[in-house]
Amino acid sequence: MAYQSINFTEKLSLIKEHWSPRIIAQMNDYHFKLAKIKGEFVWHAHDDTDEVFVCIDGDLTIEFKDGSVGLGPGEMVVIPKGKEHRPVAQEECRILLIEPAGTVNTGDNPGEMTQARTEWI
Amino acid sequence: MAYQSINFTEKLSLIKEHWSPRIIAQMNDYHFKLAKIKGEFVWHAHDDTDEVFVCIDGDLTIEFKDGSVGLGPGEMVVIPKGKEHRPVAQEECRILLIEPAGTVNTGDNPGEMTQARTEWI
Repeated sequence: MAYQSINFTEKLSLIKEHWSPRIIAQMNDYHFKLAKIKGEFVWHAHDDTDEVFVCIDGDLTIEFKDGSVGLGPGEMVVIPKGKEHRPVAQEECRILLIEPAGTVNTGDNPGEMTQARTEWI
Repeated sequence: MAYQSINFTEKLSLIKEHWSPRIIAQMNDYHFKLAKIKGEFVWHAHDDTDEVFVCIDGDLTIEFKDGSVGLGPGEMVVIPKGKEHRPVAQEECRILLIEPAGTVNTGDNPGEMTQARTEWI
């Protein structure tokens, strides 16, 4: 049987909008999501879970209320459960997110950037 | 406060042995581990959990009893719970593993490649 790997670059080519994650894989009850981001997201926290950001390509900053962390290609960070954060990217950046299935992108701060449903690609 | 990203290349430079994963991050009850691999690992399965392989650098093949999947840089695969598999790399390959904390590298097939304890770097 021919099994298929999941290629980040190929999957990212299917994503057109910024701040609109798409699911590419499931491990137990966790989803792996790819996203293209540019500009400033909204401040939010995830009250029930940690969240992982991996930078695939480009640069992003994740702002916290008491500091920030910069991520370049091949770097990751764990956002602790309940910690307010805001991702920001001056230029388009491509990221991998890992979080429990059902985690809402805007966490505790719903609004116009909230993605009601996260599609698979 | 200055937060620190986790850089895969920097962390990998700290690993000397093949087939000896090191923990670099924890998200909820999951560990992120880096490893350098070369040659053939042992056939095994993880009866209680899926497992994710991400290829950072190099090429590997994950053999199954009924086929195989090849991974190059920027590619990942989810090994389903209970599925027998054997990672193989002709040349040194650097990988990121994501699995529940406490998952043993050789799964249901302990032996001389079993890592009794997985250290943080």
